Amino acid sequence: MPARVIIENVRPEIDGGRYPIKRSVGDPVVVTANIFADGHEALAARLRFRQAGETEWTETPMEPAVWGLDLWRGRFRVRHMGVYYYTVEAWLDHFQSWRRDFQKKVQAGQDVSVDVLVGAELVQAASQRASGADADQLRAWSQALYSKQGDLDGRIERALDDSLASLVEKYPDRRSAVTYSKELAVSVDREKARASAWYEMFPRSSSPVPGRHGTFKDCEERLPYVAGMGFDVLYLPPIHPVGHTNRKGRNNNPVRQPHDVGSPWAIGAPEGGHKAIEPQLGSLEDFRRLMARAREHGLEVALDIAFQCTPDHPYVKEHPEWFRWRPDGSIQYAENPPKKYEDIYPLEFENEHWRELWEELKSVFLFWIEQGVRIFRVDNPHTKPLAFWEWVLADLKREYPDLLFLSEAFTRPAVMYRLAKLGFTHSYTYFAWRNTKWELTQYFTELTQTDVREYFRPHLWPNTPDILTEYLQYGGRPAFMARFVLAATLGANYGIYGPAFELCENRAVRPGSEEYLDSEKYQIRHWDVQRPDGLREFIARVNRIRRENPALLNDTSLQFHPVDNDQLIAYSKATEDFSNFILVVVNLDPHHRHSGWLDLPVESLGLDPHQAYQVHDLLSDARYFWHGSRNYVELNPHVCPAHIFRVRRRLRTERDFDYFM
Amino acid sequence: MPARVIIENVRPEIDGGRYPIKRSVGDPVVVTANIFADGHEALAARLRFRQAGETEWTETPMEPAVWGLDLWRGRFRVRHMGVYYYTVEAWLDHFQSWRRDFQKKVQAGQDVSVDVLVGAELVQAASQRASGADADQLRAWSQALYSKQGDLDGRIERALDDSLASLVEKYPDRRSAVTYSKELAVSVDREKARASAWYEMFPRSSSPVPGRHGTFKDCEERLPYVAGMGFDVLYLPPIHPVGHTNRKGRNNNPVRQPHDVGSPWAIGAPEGGHKAIEPQLGSLEDFRRLMARAREHGLEVALDIAFQCTPDHPYVKEHPEWFRWRPDGSIQYAENPPKKYEDIYPLEFENEHWRELWEELKSVFLFWIEQGVRIFRVDNPHTKPLAFWEWVLADLKREYPDLLFLSEAFTRPAVMYRLAKLGFTHSYTYFAWRNTKWELTQYFTELTQTDVREYFRPHLWPNTPDILTEYLQYGGRPAFMARFVLAATLGANYGIYGPAFELCENRAVRPGSEEYLDSEKYQIRHWDVQRPDGLREFIARVNRIRRENPALLNDTSLQFHPVDNDQLIAYSKATEDFSNFILVVVNLDPHHRHSGWLDLPVESLGLDPHQAYQVHDLLSDARYFWHGSRNYVELNPHVCPAHIFRVRRRLRTERDFDYFM
Repeated sequence: MPARVIIENVRPEIDGGRYPIKRSVGDPVVVTANIFADGHEALAARLRFRQAGETEWTETPMEPAVWGLDLWRGRFRVRHMGVYYYTVEAWLDHFQSWRRDFQKKVQAGQDVSVDVLVGAELVQAASQRASGADADQLRAWSQALYSKQGDLDGRIERALDDSLASLVEKYPDRRSAVTYSKELAVSVDREKARASAWYEMFPRSSSPVPGRHGTFKDCEERLPYVAGMGFDVLYLPPIHPVGHTNRKGRNNNPVRQPHDVGSPWAIGAPEGGHKAIEPQLGSLEDFRRLMARAREHGLEVALDIAFQCTPDHPYVKEHPEWFRWRPDGSIQYAENPPKKYEDIYPLEFENEHWRELWEELKSVFLFWIEQGVRIFRVDNPHTKPLAFWEWVLADLKREYPDLLFLSEAFTRPAVMYRLAKLGFTHSYTYFAWRNTKWELTQYFTELTQTDVREYFRPHLWPNTPDILTEYLQYGGRPAFMARFVLAATLGANYGIYGPAFELCENRAVRPGSEEYLDSEKYQIRHWDVQRPDGLREFIARVNRIRRENPALLNDTSLQFHPVDNDQLIAYSKATEDFSNFILVVVNLDPHHRHSGWLDLPVESLGLDPHQAYQVHDLLSDARYFWHGSRNYVELNPHVCPAHIFRVRRRLRTERDFDYFM
Repeated sequence: MPARVIIENVRPEIDGGRYPIKRSVGDPVVVTANIFADGHEALAARLRFRQAGETEWTETPMEPAVWGLDLWRGRFRVRHMGVYYYTVEAWLDHFQSWRRDFQKKVQAGQDVSVDVLVGAELVQAASQRASGADADQLRAWSQALYSKQGDLDGRIERALDDSLASLVEKYPDRRSAVTYSKELAVSVDREKARASAWYEMFPRSSSPVPGRHGTFKDCEERLPYVAGMGFDVLYLPPIHPVGHTNRKGRNNNPVRQPHDVGSPWAIGAPEGGHKAIEPQLGSLEDFRRLMARAREHGLEVALDIAFQCTPDHPYVKEHPEWFRWRPDGSIQYAENPPKKYEDIYPLEFENEHWRELWEELKSVFLFWIEQGVRIFRVDNPHTKPLAFWEWVLADLKREYPDLLFLSEAFTRPAVMYRLAKLGFTHSYTYFAWRNTKWELTQYFTELTQTDVREYFRPHLWPNTPDILTEYLQYGGRPAFMARFVLAATLGANYGIYGPAFELCENRAVRPGSEEYLDSEKYQIRHWDVQRPDGLREFIARVNRIRRENPALLNDTSLQFHPVDNDQLIAYSKATEDFSNFILVVVNLDPHHRHSGWLDLPVESLGLDPHQAYQVHDLLSDARYFWHGSRNYVELNPHVCPAHIFRVRRRLRTERDFDYFM
C-alpha cells in the first residue's frame, strides 16, 4: 500500500535542492524536517549522508525537536573538502507505538494479557531481522513473553525492559520506510572559507622611493608589515600589462599625461593580456617568489580576475568575434549612458564562438592556478553570463577543491545571491553603506539568520579603491576604528584596502563623491606606513582577538542585543558549545560619547541570572563585573569607539574558597 | 549559448509545485517572480496561463513590482471550476535596452549618429518578425533611420517615437526567452468555497415533541428558522444506522439504558452501514426531499463522512480483512490509551486488500453524490492514510468539480496543512482555542498572510458538539456574541453548532471538561428555539451584514490594527478595489466595558488624513465621525461586544455644496 510516512520541508534546502549549501571543513550540518504520518503511530527517522564518490550512506538518528510541530532534527559534520549529500529516511515504528501504549495501559492498571502477546509477536518479528546472538536473545525474549508459564506481572516487566527496547531498535522494521525524494548537496570548502582577513594593496605603490613604480620585490619588503597586522590574505589588484589606448590620467582624467600609469583594470597591451605580468612589476618568477615569501609570513596571495580588455589587448586582434561591432565598423566600448569607458572593450558573450571564449577564460584561471594561486577575487561577475560562472567554478573546483572565489558584485540582491548560489565562495556585501543600527541589524539578520546564510558568505569591506564612504570621509579616525571593528567582528570574512585604510585616508575627489582623491586606480601613491597616527596597532590587536576567540570566526551565531541608545549597537557571537562567547558594543557616532543600558538574554546564554559575571574588554584589557540582564555601557569614540568583551560565565564565590563548609 | 535570463522564486508555489494553490471562481491569481539577467539589458516578461485541457497559453504582461529587487508581478483571473496552470516567460529586450540608453545619450547631447544606425538594425529585425501592414511600416521606419538624407535631428525624433516602440513591442525578439521550469496548478472551486455560513444540527433533536426521535420531516419544519438566520449550509452529523454493541449511554456512560440512542458516529447496524439511513430518521426519499426543501430556502445540505464502524457494521462480517485482529482472535477496537472506545472498530488500512477498501470508501461518497449531496464534512481525516485522501478527492473532483470537502482535523499543524494541500476545500482550525488578542493576531496572520493562505481555507467554529470552550462556559451571552462576531468576520467560512450555540448553552459535563452536559452526541435534546434570550436576531443581522458587504467574504485582505487596550481587537477586510471596507472591533472581555484608542493606517486605506470620514456601525446602525489615524472606541459587552463598521471614505464638505464658489 502507498507510503504512510510524509517527509517534507527539509531544511536547509536551497531552491528546491537546485543549489548546494556551503560549509567549511569541520562545520556541522543541522538538518530539520517535518515528519509525520496519519494516525498516532510512533515514528523513527534517520539523517543519511555521504561524501560524493561514496556509495554507502552513513546514518545518524533524528529526534523530535519541537513538541507538536512534527519537526525533527539531526546533524552531521563535514570533514573533507568537496561535495557531500544528505537526505532523510523515516518509518512507522510499530514496536515503539506498542511499547508507548502498553506502558500507559499498565500504568492505568488495565488488563494487558492480550497486549503482551502483541508485543511478543513484534519481538519475534525483530528476531527474524536480527542475526547471531542478538537473534537468539530476541527469540528467547519473545518466547518468554508468549509463555503462559511465567506470571503476567513478570512478563509485563520483561516486556518493558529498556534493554529489550534497545535491542529491537537495532533491527527496525523498515517496510514502511520512506526516503525524502531529493539528495541535497553540501559544497565543502577549506577552513579559510569560513574566516579570513584580507589586505588589499597596489603593488605599484609599494616602492620605498616616492614616485618610483613599485615591484613585486618591493612587495616582499612590505610583507612583515601586513603580516604584523594579522592578515592572512594579501589581495593584489590586476597585475597584467596596462593598456595605452585611451588610457585615463590621474583622478580619472580623460586626458592623460605622458607618465600616467593607467588603471590596472584596463587589461591588455602589446606585452600581453590576462596571462601576462605588467613588466614594471617584475617577472612571473618574481611573482612566484612573492607568493612563496608571503606564505612564509602566513599570507596567501589572492589575484584579481577582471574579464575585460583594452583596445590593445591581444584578444582584439586574435578574436575580433569576441567583441560587439558597431554599424560604423568600430568596436563597442563600455558605457553606462551617459558615461563612457572608451579604454575598455567588454567581451561580447552573445556570440557564436562563445564556447571558445568560455574555454579561454577558464584557461586564464588555470594559468594562475598553475603558478600556485588558489584565491581569486572576481571583478564585476554580474556583467558576465551567470551560466558561465556556474560552469567554470564547478569545473575548476572539481580538480582544485581548495580554490576560493570572491564575488565582487555590488548590484541588486537577487543577482548577488544568485552568484553565491552558482559557486562563489565569498561575496561582497552592502556593508559599506550600512551605517545605522537599524540598517546593520536588518541587513546582518538577513545575511546570518535566514536561508541566505546557507549559501552566501558575506565578505565585509569598510573601504575599497572604489568606495570611500561619507561616513569615513567625515568621521575622522574614530569612524575608521568603528567601521574596522564592525567589519572584523560582524564578518568572519572581511578585508580592508590599505594603506589608505589604516592611514585613515579620507579625502574624496570632490564633495558628494565616494571616489578617493588621487586614487591609486590611476596613479602611484607613496604611503608612510610608519606614521604614528595610523591604525596599525589597533588592527593588529583586533586581528589577534579574532585568532584567539573562535566565536568571531563564524557568522551564523550572530545575535543582536538591545541597547536603549540608537548610537550604540551590541551583538554577540559564540562557539557551538558556548565555551567562547564574545559581546561587541560599538558607538556608531564618531563624534560624541554615548552611554546606554544593554539587555542580554542571560539565561539563554547560559549565565546564572542571580550571580555576577565578568566581561573582559579584549581591546582595553579592562574587566567589568556585570549582574543580570541589564548593564550600563559607555563609549567615548575619541578614546575607543568599541568594546570587544569576552564574557566569562561564572565568577568565583565563597563556595569556591577552600575552607568553605 | 546557454540562457542568460533567470526566473526564480515564482510565487505562489506550494512545496516546489507539488501541490496546487486554491482559488474560487472569479478570484485573481497574482503571480510574482524574481527575473533578471547578467549585465544591464532591459527585460520583458509574460505571465502565461491556461485551463486544463486547453493547449494554448494565454499571455498577460508582467511588470517590475519593486525597484531594485528584480521582482516582477502579473495577474489573471480564474473564471471556471477545475484546474488552471500558470508559468512565467521572460527575455532580453534588446530594443528597449537600446531605446533607454539612446534616450540618455540624446539628453546628454552626445553624438548618437552610430546609435541611430544600431536602432535602425533593430527595427529592421522587428520588421522581419512582423507581417502585413506592420511589417511594411517597420521596414519604412527602419529605412528612414538608416537614410543619410534625413537630418540627424529628424531621425533621432523618429527613433524615439512612442508608436515605434509600441509597434516593435508587438513583435518581440524571443530568441533569448526562458520559460520557468514548472507549470504550477490552481485548483478552482465554486464560489461557496470562498465564503459560506454553516449551521450544524442533529436531525434526531428536531422533533417538536420533547423526547420523540426527530425525523427528516421534522427537519423540514426547522428550515425556515435556519434560513432566517442567514445560513447557507445545513450540516447534519452522520445519518446512518447507529450500532448496538457496546453503545454508549447518556453523557458517554459506558453503561447504556434501554432507550439510549447512541452516538451517530457509531456507524453500522443490521439495517446497514455508510450507505444506509437510520430508520428512525426516515427513508432515503425523505432525505432527498429534505435536500430539495432546503435548497428552496437557500440551504445546501452537507453530510458527515466518518469512516469507522461499530461491531455491528456489515463490513465486519463481509470484510474481516479490513480490521486489525488481536492474538486472542478479537478485533482491535479504537483506543487512545488509557481511553477505550469499544463501540468503534477502526478500519485497518495497512492490509493486503487496501485497494478494495479504498474503492469501497470512494463508493460511499459516490452513493451520496448520486443523491445530490455536494458538500461533505469528513470526520477525523488525519487517522486515515494521507495518500488515500489525495487519491479519492482528486478522483471525485475530476468528475464533480463542484464538490466541497471540509476536513475535521484538530491535530498538529503540519498534518492539518498537509490535508489541505491534498485536496480538502476547507479545514477546521484552532480558532475555538484562540481567545486573546495576541493568539488571534498571531494565528490569523499565519493563516491569511503567509503561503498557508494559498492552500488552506480556514473554517471557523466557535463551538462543535465536541467543543464547549471555557470561554463560552464562563463568559455568558456576551461571550457567545463576541465569539460569533469573530468567527463570522475573521473567517469568510464559518459555522456554529446549534441550537446549542444560539441558545447560549454553556453547561459542561463537569468542570475542566469541554464536553457538553447532556450532549446530543449521546441523547436526544429538545430545544426551545423561540426563546427570547437567544441570539437568533443577532446572528441574522451579522449574516445579513456579511451578505451585503463583500469585504467580509474573503480572508486574504485581513489586516490587524493596533488598539492600546489588550482586551480590544481590531481588524479590517476590504474588497480588491477598496470600494467596500469593513472595520471590526471586538471587546474580548465578556465581563467588563473597555475603551481604547485605535490606530488606522488611514493613508494606505485611501482615506484623506486631513479630512473627517464616517464609520457606520452596521450592528447598532450608529454613525461616528472620525478624523485621522487615531480614534476612540468603547464597547460594553452587556450591550454589544462588537462594532462592525463600514468605513466610508469621504464626507461631504462645503465644497460639495451647490453654491460653493
